[in-house]
Amino acid sequence: MPQPDIALYPIPGLPEIVPGSNLSSALADAIASSELRLLDFDILVVAHKVVSKAEGRIVPLSQVQPSMLANEWADQYGKDPRVIELALREARRVVRMENGVLITETKHGFICANSGVDTSNVPPGCAVLLPEDPDASAENLARSLGQMFKAHLGIIVSDTFGRPWREGLVNVAIGLAGFNPMIDYRGSRDTFGKMMRASIVASADELAGAAEIVMGKTRRVPAVLIRGFSWTDSEGTGKQLLRAASADLFR
Amino acid sequence: MPQPDIALYPIPGLPEIVPGSNLSSALADAIASSELRLLDFDILVVAHKVVSKAEGRIVPLSQVQPSMLANEWADQYGKDPRVIELALREARRVVRMENGVLITETKHGFICANSGVDTSNVPPGCAVLLPEDPDASAENLARSLGQMFKAHLGIIVSDTFGRPWREGLVNVAIGLAGFNPMIDYRGSRDTFGKMMRASIVASADELAGAAEIVMGKTRRVPAVLIRGFSWTDSEGTGKQLLRAASADLFR
Repeated sequence: MPQPDIALYPIPGLPEIVPGSNLSSALADAIASSELRLLDFDILVVAHKVVSKAEGRIVPLSQVQPSMLANEWADQYGKDPRVIELALREARRVVRMENGVLITETKHGFICANSGVDTSNVPPGCAVLLPEDPDASAENLARSLGQMFKAHLGIIVSDTFGRPWREGLVNVAIGLAGFNPMIDYRGSRDTFGKMMRASIVASADELAGAAEIVMGKTRRVPAVLIRGFSWTDSEGTGKQLLRAASADLFR
Repeated sequence: MPQPDIALYPIPGLPEIVPGSNLSSALADAIASSELRLLDFDILVVAHKVVSKAEGRIVPLSQVQPSMLANEWADQYGKDPRVIELALREARRVVRMENGVLITETKHGFICANSGVDTSNVPPGCAVLLPEDPDASAENLARSLGQMFKAHLGIIVSDTFGRPWREGLVNVAIGLAGFNPMIDYRGSRDTFGKMMRASIVASADELAGAAEIVMGKTRRVPAVLIRGFSWTDSEGTGKQLLRAASADLFR
């Protein structure tokens, strides 16, 4: 039986993460409890929700005073006006606000539904926001877990986003550290020796998606270890995955 | 050392596939040469290019007479007018045609660059088109490989597509058979017991993306075996992943 090229291991068993939790210690403990350890070139994909919780990006909805816009729109489409209010506050621009769908460009530059504000898998009566700076969150985890396991790691902080044209959400990398999120095939040759022209692959998003398969949504698996992906360029951020507005034909 | 939840195995060693090649036999041989066999609930992700080649969806560019539109636009942006001509012929609608980017809605309903017409990894002087009916291609592979290995299989026919808002291509499922491409979490409860509302995950696209990590672009690995993803609903097509135009805010 051959070895797989890529293997994905669930990291269950995290305690409920609350503001101030030491997330890297909690992850290290959960990894050890799974009888795993992190090795050079391992990638750990961490659902943003535990990152946001540890960083205190949780808001009790009772403290949110919706604007008239949030109230009226939420009313029209049967949404919670306080969630809409938070989504608008986290946005720097409304991309679409129609048919009950609110798509914004967040302060970070992500284009997603409700600015990523979410009420699932959080304590009742609360909403969770995206981390303030998901690349910094990833960088912190890469550094602290890297020290604990004495390994050069890649970290992805992930969230599930919808997308135009295709149904269903997919997990993507919103924060990243330790490796280049793209593989650039331009200048390499195809199997016929022809120079490739326009092939830059967003590997980090594909890795995040792969991890989601293991995370599921309800299984309390907020982190997944991916083994077998190696890289030569250890510089990278999630921001590199954001297309500049000037180059985008769809916003 | 625990077992991985999901494992991905490359299937290299296919001969060059040409029109009329028996693709399922070639895949079965390559799988056997990798000392693997297909088991129930295995998913085989197959790059559309070998499917298209086997199905004769290869066009010698010398036989393509570009229209005036194709000629002028290709000229303006330094493209091959014959490729643009093929892209226009494969389209049912032009979605964007500006800044040197041609995004169409194909006859199948995919929205992608150049209608998926591609000249990399094909014999010099040729272009490859998407399969006529990628779901039927997947269905054929699921049936023939399922019989050979006496297993219930999932098949994904994949291609790498760009997307709005985010840089880089990701692999997606353009054809599918044997399982439901989506996981619908609506009605299930989160870890706090709260009913989930709007969570439908496009697992098949995430699986296709995971496979791309193994395929690379230049390594001559046109198929990847994914083991560890199981399903209860064995009905499904790639078409289910296409958002209806009436529900789409971005075309």
